[in-house]
Amino acid sequence: MSKALAGEGNTDAYGWAARDSSGILSPFNFIRREAGGRDITIKILYCGICHTDLHFLKNDHGITIYPLVPGHEIVGQVIKVGRDVTKFKVGDIAGVGGIIGTCGSCSNCTQGLESYCPKMMLTFNGHDHDGSITYGGYSNNFVVDEHFAVMIPKTLPLHGTAPLLCAGITVYSPMMHHGLCKPGQHLGVVGLGGLGHLAVKFAKAFNMKVTVISTSPGKKKEAIERLGVDAFLLIHEEQQLKDAMGTMDGIIDTVSAPHSVYPLVSLLKTSGNLVLVGVPISSPELPSMPLIMGRKTISGSAGGGMKETQEMIDFSAKHNITADVEVIPMNYVNTAIERLGKNDVKYRFVIDVANTLNSGATN
Amino acid sequence: MSKALAGEGNTDAYGWAARDSSGILSPFNFIRREAGGRDITIKILYCGICHTDLHFLKNDHGITIYPLVPGHEIVGQVIKVGRDVTKFKVGDIAGVGGIIGTCGSCSNCTQGLESYCPKMMLTFNGHDHDGSITYGGYSNNFVVDEHFAVMIPKTLPLHGTAPLLCAGITVYSPMMHHGLCKPGQHLGVVGLGGLGHLAVKFAKAFNMKVTVISTSPGKKKEAIERLGVDAFLLIHEEQQLKDAMGTMDGIIDTVSAPHSVYPLVSLLKTSGNLVLVGVPISSPELPSMPLIMGRKTISGSAGGGMKETQEMIDFSAKHNITADVEVIPMNYVNTAIERLGKNDVKYRFVIDVANTLNSGATN
Repeated sequence: MSKALAGEGNTDAYGWAARDSSGILSPFNFIRREAGGRDITIKILYCGICHTDLHFLKNDHGITIYPLVPGHEIVGQVIKVGRDVTKFKVGDIAGVGGIIGTCGSCSNCTQGLESYCPKMMLTFNGHDHDGSITYGGYSNNFVVDEHFAVMIPKTLPLHGTAPLLCAGITVYSPMMHHGLCKPGQHLGVVGLGGLGHLAVKFAKAFNMKVTVISTSPGKKKEAIERLGVDAFLLIHEEQQLKDAMGTMDGIIDTVSAPHSVYPLVSLLKTSGNLVLVGVPISSPELPSMPLIMGRKTISGSAGGGMKETQEMIDFSAKHNITADVEVIPMNYVNTAIERLGKNDVKYRFVIDVANTLNSGATN
Repeated sequence: MSKALAGEGNTDAYGWAARDSSGILSPFNFIRREAGGRDITIKILYCGICHTDLHFLKNDHGITIYPLVPGHEIVGQVIKVGRDVTKFKVGDIAGVGGIIGTCGSCSNCTQGLESYCPKMMLTFNGHDHDGSITYGGYSNNFVVDEHFAVMIPKTLPLHGTAPLLCAGITVYSPMMHHGLCKPGQHLGVVGLGGLGHLAVKFAKAFNMKVTVISTSPGKKKEAIERLGVDAFLLIHEEQQLKDAMGTMDGIIDTVSAPHSVYPLVSLLKTSGNLVLVGVPISSPELPSMPLIMGRKTISGSAGGGMKETQEMIDFSAKHNITADVEVIPMNYVNTAIERLGKNDVKYRFVIDVANTLNSGATN
């Protein structure tokens, strides 16, 4: 469809790609699909590094298509708009997250739940409308249907905004959906990484009480002093667990590593909700009895829709919420990926694409 | 407290009790605590036989106190009211379910969630205010704080009403709590027994589409012809499962026997909710990925509060909902318990206590 509308030619692009499951990234020239009437073309300024990038680089899910250009936490400047674009003009700042297309007609799409459309197209390692493979944000530019881009207020520091497009919406959406956004409520946050630290920031902006739940005593100081959480709970400390039982309205669990959910469920009040947002490596036991005896709930959540993503960005702008990031040059990306694998980052790497990505790969 | 208020003396009672884990019931004389100012005394007319009775009779949970008089689906006529009773007068019909006391002051109690009070007192095999062991409804009378009795409209057939006090509220409460009560919604009901057939009746009264999910092909005819369900799904039939995937707003799972919840979760729409109400014998695997990818939820629920139980009774009276029951005489109870163990009942045994329980045990 875009071909028929556009006729403006394909878009030359360059970035960094992995060629195989070593996951090592290096410079790569490629072509993006031609921009259609509803598309905007953006010059990428910043791109966050998400754990998902790491899994795809290493082909952990067995579905990676090489060469792979990762990146789905993209902030950039609009440099071209199609004839039918209404939301953006040249010079605006746009954000793109994990999805760049859906069927548009299923019950999920019509409810604004694009991230649950069975035909959603991923920002990288997906298939675009014209069948071409999608390349992500570790690159100089991006072409996207304006529906799948959000407007970034220029007041937001852009490097810290990039991670909101995936990590941010991943925690914000279930908080809103399950009503875990009310003043005075008590929220538990499991895992203090890219997702967890943003859950803390949203919860504090909602005037909630926040407890970080962790297995690492070393994180207590930073959680309290840097992020201002109200309490820090070591889940393996029996007395701490006992003291906090039945006190939480909800818990956002961002941890992918195998772990039992029984202790977490015990922390919930009657009718409380444990929300899983970290893609799990293994599936633990379902705590049927504790769920029944406490009218408790375990839910999952994956990303959020475009309307809600815009709302999250606007909320973040109003409350000065951005991710705590370590900004890196493009040629540091392989080291960053290695460090991310060891959770050695507070709390998100963001590539300064515009200033550090050089063209000139020979492929 | 009741002793200080009342001074009316203890209440002689008789019923049928099990003396050991054989679970065999036989006549038994006993004394109930004296009736206090807030208590009503009722002459028991009917008592339903719940699966829980069976588990306690056989000491399946290891917590049975013998002699055990089971029964917590009680309907009877008020024959005496304490001086502070305001809700009932002599001659009224009252219903008593699984709980006869709570702390009254915890956050669950103050929200009307009595069935989640950590100090709740069970109708049988519990400890009463004065420390005495509670005896259930397989007996001639009952003494209960009026707060834990509901008013039964005399228009309801009383034998079919008794099972509403446990089976009924157990399915009604989560349907209301999770909003699974809207016209046009699609509800799955797993298991067509005492709980399941009432879930079907409530759902039809809410003008929902109902699918019974079962492993027994033989139940299809009765589900459709007797209960008027819209569809019948054999969960082990791959094609039937595939055809129904993603179609249900919610599922009420009444089955205690071990079973995977993966197929059930696959039947839910995005944001759908699987509610466990059958006390499970074992805990299956938590389907983390399907929950995350579909924003789905697994919840548990145990009974309901007193206000909601009254609402359920009033709703049932308005919509002519009662359980389908097999009314039995008291001396058939051991056979009934044996048949219940084989699920050989449509759908609930109810003891005609008033007409068939004779006094005169020698203990």
